[in-house]
Amino acid sequence: MSRTQKNSALLPSIDLKDACVDAARESIAAHGVEHLSLRDVARRLGVSHQAPYRHYPSRDHLLAEVMRRCFRNFTIHLEKRESNQDPQKELEALGRQYLSFALANPLEYRLMFSTPWPQSAEHPELVRDAAHAFDTLRNALARIHNVTLPNAFVNQNALFIWSTMHGLASLLGSNCMHHLNISDQTVQEIPEYILTMIGQALQSQMPMD
Amino acid sequence: MSRTQKNSALLPSIDLKDACVDAARESIAAHGVEHLSLRDVARRLGVSHQAPYRHYPSRDHLLAEVMRRCFRNFTIHLEKRESNQDPQKELEALGRQYLSFALANPLEYRLMFSTPWPQSAEHPELVRDAAHAFDTLRNALARIHNVTLPNAFVNQNALFIWSTMHGLASLLGSNCMHHLNISDQTVQEIPEYILTMIGQALQSQMPMD
Repeated sequence: MSRTQKNSALLPSIDLKDACVDAARESIAAHGVEHLSLRDVARRLGVSHQAPYRHYPSRDHLLAEVMRRCFRNFTIHLEKRESNQDPQKELEALGRQYLSFALANPLEYRLMFSTPWPQSAEHPELVRDAAHAFDTLRNALARIHNVTLPNAFVNQNALFIWSTMHGLASLLGSNCMHHLNISDQTVQEIPEYILTMIGQALQSQMPMD
Repeated sequence: MSRTQKNSALLPSIDLKDACVDAARESIAAHGVEHLSLRDVARRLGVSHQAPYRHYPSRDHLLAEVMRRCFRNFTIHLEKRESNQDPQKELEALGRQYLSFALANPLEYRLMFSTPWPQSAEHPELVRDAAHAFDTLRNALARIHNVTLPNAFVNQNALFIWSTMHGLASLLGSNCMHHLNISDQTVQEIPEYILTMIGQALQSQMPMD
């Protein structure tokens, strides 16, 4: 019996909406996102197979809600970083938060950044909350570049930083560095080294005093 | 009927070894790596379900051979880069080759860097060919840093560059940038921008003349 099943035989409507999200995450963890279906979610919850349709017109709508909550939790985690007067140090703190979320929540992380999105036009709330997470990075960079609104330059640097942190999180998560004759110490120290290298690259873009 | 099935009813032994790899790739493409089995491979080839065991003692041995060939093809592709007198420009050419392989061969790329490895001690040829691919990067960096053998410093920079390129390849492959209100032009130009940023970060590590 799955974790969510035992209390859900006669769920009030609002609880069913949340319970579907929990059951969907269980289903994805067990069988992968491509096997997610409203029928399986209903089965896990012990409700009629029509019941989830009250809240989710389709499997993609449920997946969009699962993904949206990942982005929301991710943003909350990013916002909890140490604040710092020095915008460069605050960016580093943001990088550490990014990495700690990715390594502690591999399923959520994969759902955000390695899962084909359901048709986005139909899920404006997902788009909004994903953009909100990205804005955390853009705003930190706007502060470094001393501009009020993110511009194309900020976007470029945001994509550079995101690529680097995403690659680092993915490689550390997949364990493949350990097959490549790299010392444990180097692997352990690589996050801080990479944050320094990002800082150096950004520095090179700054106008000279 | 699968592509490999039609000619494989009575394969000579050496052909069966290769045919198993092709059938395994088809199986992985269709059902994911977690559903790979020697039985399914035999079924796809129309041979007895004992036949693949002649070459692969287990499903993991076959997977290791599939992955090894990915690394070998990847290295061959990397070696085809434009050579350049300027080691910095040669590193950029290597970055472009990396990205073009990743985007043109998403299944192979995922098998190399996003798939849990079979127990590596039992597959020394996989370890060797994976290290060989990584050495392409390490050797290009050793040239930039003017050292004969890759050292800890080279390894750190190699992991920085690999993280950045891996993240870029993964984000471009997953299409998630398109949901974030970033212009097509910025997305299109981001690979060259990121190669420049990598170069700037490396430059900052060089001793001043």
